Amino acid sequence: MSYKLELNIDENHDDAKYFQIYRQIRDLIMNGAIPSGSKLPSIRMLAKDTDVNTLTVVNAYKMLEKDNLVYKKEGSGTFVLSKDEEILIGNDVLYFEPGELEFGYSYGDDIIDLSSSAPDPKLFPIRDFKNVMDKVLEEDGASAFMYQTSTGYLPLRKSLQLYSESYGIKCKEDDIYVVSGAQQGIDIIAKAMVRSGDYVFVETPTYSGAIAAFKSRGARLVQVSLYPDGPGIKELEMLVKQFRPVLFYAMPNFHNPTGYTYSERKKRYLLLLARKYNFKILEDDYAGDLNFTKTNIFSLKSYDNDNNAIYLKSFSKIFMPGLRLAYLIVPEEIRDRTADAKIASDISTSGLMQRVLRKYIDEGILERHTEYLKEELAVRYLEMVRAIRKFIRGGSLIEPKGGLNLWVKLPEDVSSVELYHKCIEKKVVISPGTFYNKGEMGLSHMRISFSGVDIEKIWQGVSIIGTEAEDIKNKNRK
Amino acid sequence: MSYKLELNIDENHDDAKYFQIYRQIRDLIMNGAIPSGSKLPSIRMLAKDTDVNTLTVVNAYKMLEKDNLVYKKEGSGTFVLSKDEEILIGNDVLYFEPGELEFGYSYGDDIIDLSSSAPDPKLFPIRDFKNVMDKVLEEDGASAFMYQTSTGYLPLRKSLQLYSESYGIKCKEDDIYVVSGAQQGIDIIAKAMVRSGDYVFVETPTYSGAIAAFKSRGARLVQVSLYPDGPGIKELEMLVKQFRPVLFYAMPNFHNPTGYTYSERKKRYLLLLARKYNFKILEDDYAGDLNFTKTNIFSLKSYDNDNNAIYLKSFSKIFMPGLRLAYLIVPEEIRDRTADAKIASDISTSGLMQRVLRKYIDEGILERHTEYLKEELAVRYLEMVRAIRKFIRGGSLIEPKGGLNLWVKLPEDVSSVELYHKCIEKKVVISPGTFYNKGEMGLSHMRISFSGVDIEKIWQGVSIIGTEAEDIKNKNRK
Repeated sequence: MSYKLELNIDENHDDAKYFQIYRQIRDLIMNGAIPSGSKLPSIRMLAKDTDVNTLTVVNAYKMLEKDNLVYKKEGSGTFVLSKDEEILIGNDVLYFEPGELEFGYSYGDDIIDLSSSAPDPKLFPIRDFKNVMDKVLEEDGASAFMYQTSTGYLPLRKSLQLYSESYGIKCKEDDIYVVSGAQQGIDIIAKAMVRSGDYVFVETPTYSGAIAAFKSRGARLVQVSLYPDGPGIKELEMLVKQFRPVLFYAMPNFHNPTGYTYSERKKRYLLLLARKYNFKILEDDYAGDLNFTKTNIFSLKSYDNDNNAIYLKSFSKIFMPGLRLAYLIVPEEIRDRTADAKIASDISTSGLMQRVLRKYIDEGILERHTEYLKEELAVRYLEMVRAIRKFIRGGSLIEPKGGLNLWVKLPEDVSSVELYHKCIEKKVVISPGTFYNKGEMGLSHMRISFSGVDIEKIWQGVSIIGTEAEDIKNKNRK
Repeated sequence: MSYKLELNIDENHDDAKYFQIYRQIRDLIMNGAIPSGSKLPSIRMLAKDTDVNTLTVVNAYKMLEKDNLVYKKEGSGTFVLSKDEEILIGNDVLYFEPGELEFGYSYGDDIIDLSSSAPDPKLFPIRDFKNVMDKVLEEDGASAFMYQTSTGYLPLRKSLQLYSESYGIKCKEDDIYVVSGAQQGIDIIAKAMVRSGDYVFVETPTYSGAIAAFKSRGARLVQVSLYPDGPGIKELEMLVKQFRPVLFYAMPNFHNPTGYTYSERKKRYLLLLARKYNFKILEDDYAGDLNFTKTNIFSLKSYDNDNNAIYLKSFSKIFMPGLRLAYLIVPEEIRDRTADAKIASDISTSGLMQRVLRKYIDEGILERHTEYLKEELAVRYLEMVRAIRKFIRGGSLIEPKGGLNLWVKLPEDVSSVELYHKCIEKKVVISPGTFYNKGEMGLSHMRISFSGVDIEKIWQGVSIIGTEAEDIKNKNRK
C-alpha cells in the first residue's frame, strides 16, 4: 500500500508543475507528514490524481531522489528514506571541517595535538631510512627514478606477498597493487568498483576520507551501526537485502575511530554475506599490527576463502606517513579495473619509495620497527586510558587494546564540537566525533590519539580536556 | 524539423514496448537509415504516433542515450550523434593497449624503446638529487616524513609561484596545488569539475591518460580536431555552442603526440571562448620549457586575464618521473573543490619529495638542468628528424622544434598497428597512433620519442622502422 497524497497543482503558478509537486512532497517529508519508509504513489497514479503528465511526476520524483529524500527500489516503487538508516548521499563536505587537522598538519611545539593518529615523529626511523635510501641509490641508480609499472615494483610485490603471508593472508604477487597511501587505495577501489548511484556500505562512525572518496564517485552511502564486536548481524543482512551494495568499506581491527575489533564470528559472517549477496568488502587494515595483547587477531582477509575481500594496508602508521605507501590485495575479477584506475589516478607510485620500502622489509627493519612501535604505543595507550579515567569525569570508553586512537563518550551535556573549540583555545587539539558521524553519536564522542604525543603531553592534554568538559557541564547546568 | 519515424509496436511481443522502440530506432541509426545529426521526434509526438505512454518513449530514448547513439540537447530535443564529431562515451579502454608501454616501462638493454617520452635515465641528475636529499634530511629530519598539508608544502608553493612568474604566469601562492604527477593533476581536476554526463572537450589526437581520467568520471568526450596552429576556430565555437563543455583539456605547446604549438592568436581565442561560454581550460604544459628555438613561446595561462585556465606542469620530464611531482595553478572559484579532490585522492603528496624539489628549484639546479636537458634533447631531435627523412620513405612530419616526440605520418598503406607489431619483433618499440586517436588518423600515424634514447639508438631504431614499413608496403602491393 502506498501513501495517499493530496497535492494542489496551480495551472497559473509561476513554478512549473513538476516543481510544484516536488516542493509539496518535499515539505510533507521534511515536516514528517509523510513518515519515513512510506511508499509514494506510483507515477501513473499520482499523474492521474493530480491531472498531470506522467513525465511531470517522473521529474518531480527525480528531484526528490537528488535531495536524498526518497529512493527508488527497482520494480517496487519510490520510498521515503528512513532517517534511522542514516543514508548520506550528495556532496556536502560536513566531514571535512576543519580539514587539515584530520591529517596531522603539524602545529607549533606549544600545541598538544591529540587529533592526529600519525605516529610521533620522534619514533620515525630516519637513520634506517637514510641508510636504505643510500643503498638504493647506489645499487639501482637512475632506474629508481623511471616510471614504475602501474601495479608496482615487482620485487616489492614479492616482498609484500611474503609479508602478507606472515599475517596469515594467502595471496599471489599478481594480486598485489602498490598504491600511494591508503587514501589512494580507497579512491582506486572506488574508481574500479563504484558507479554513480551504486550503494556503498560504511560503518558508522567511520573515516571521513573514505566517505569523501565514495561520494566523489556519486555513491549512495548507507551507514551500518557498529557494536564493540562488529555490525549487528540481522540489521546488516536486512540492509544488504534492501540496498544490494557493491561494496562494504570496513575496518574490522581496531576500527577508526572506535577502536572496536570485529569478533572472528562476525568477520566470517560478513564474508558469508558478501558471497551470498555478491558484494565486495574493502578491509582497511590501517592498524591491525598494533595489537597490544598476547591474543592473535587476524584480518578479515585471512578468513576469505572466496575472494570477496579486498585488503588495504597502509605503511603510514608503521613506517612513515610522508612516504605515501600502501598496498592492496585485489581479487582476480577486479584486477584489470584496479590497474586501469591506478593508471588514471597517477600512473604509478614513486619507484624510489617502493625500492626503499622493499629493502626496508627485506632486511627485517620493518618487522623490528613495528615491534618497537608497538611497545612504545602500548605504554602511551595505557597512560592515556589512565589519564582519561582520572580527568574526564562522567566520560567512558571501551578499551581497544590496540591501534592508535581512543573513542571517548563525553560526559552528558558536553558536545564534542563545543569541547573542540574550547580545547583549541587552550592549545589542545581533539577530533570531535562529528568528523566520523554527523549525528548524535558524533556530538557525544571525541577521538583522541595516543600515537603522536609523548606521555607528558598525554597527561597535560587529557587534563585540559577534563577541565574544559567540566566547564561546559557547569555552564549548561546553570 | 525532426525525423519522421515509422515504428511497429507489437502488443503481444515478448519484449516490453519501450524495448521494441529502442531496438527499432537503434537499428535505424546503426544501418544509417536515420542520418547522424537528425533530430528524433519529440517524446510526446512519438508516444502519440506509436500509441504508447510518454514514459515508454522516455525509457527508450534513455537506452539510446546510454548506447551513445543519441544525445539530448536541453530545450531542443534528442539528436542522433554525428560520427564526424567522434564523440566517445563509455568505458572502453581502447587507448590503453598495450598499457604499460605508454608509461616508460623499462625493457632490457637490447630493446630500443622509442615509445616512452620519459627522458633518458642517463640524463637524470642523480648526484644532485642525493645531495639535496641529504640536506633535507639533515635540516628537516622527521618533519619531512609527516603528512603534508594537502595543498602542498608552503615553502615549495612559494618557490613554484616565482618559478611560474619566470615563465610569464602571474599567480598567488594560494593558487598553487602540489600534486603527485601530471596524471594526478588531471584526475583531480576531473574530480573537482566533472560530473557524470558533463561534456569535456579534448584535442584529437590526445593523451590517453587524460581520456581515462575523464571517462572514469562519466564524462562525455568530444574530440576537437587539431591543425598545426591549434584547433579550427569556427568548428570549435560551433561545438562549444552545441555541447557546452565544462572543461577543455589542451596541450597548447608541443602538443602530445603531434608536437603542434597553438599560435598566440589561437591561445587568446580559446581563452575568449572560455569566457564567453563559461568553461575552463586545463592546460597541460608537459613540455613547454623544451623549446629548441630562439623564439619565446608562452603558455596559454600566461595570457589568461580572466582566470579561465587551469595550469598543470609536470616535473616528470624535466626532473625525474619516478618522483611523481607536478603542480596546478587553479582559479579561485574552484580552489576548494580542488583541495577536497586532492584529499580524497591521496591526502597529500610526499612531503619529503616536495622538500627535495623545493631545494632543487631554490638552489637553481632545476634551471641549470632544464637548460642542459634542452641542449641534449635538441641534438637528439635533429638527429631523429634526419633519420626519419632518410629511412621512412613516403612518410612525413611537421617539425615541432621542441618537446619530446615526433608525430610521423606513415607511408600510404602502412598501418601503425601492423608496424608496431612488426617492429616489436625487431626489438624496436613505437607508439602506434591508435594510442591517441582511434580513427583513421591513429592508424596512419606513429609517435616516436627522441628523449629516452641516445643518438646511436635513434638511428638504429628509425632505420629498422623504415625497413619494416617498406616490408608492409611491398606485401600490400602484391
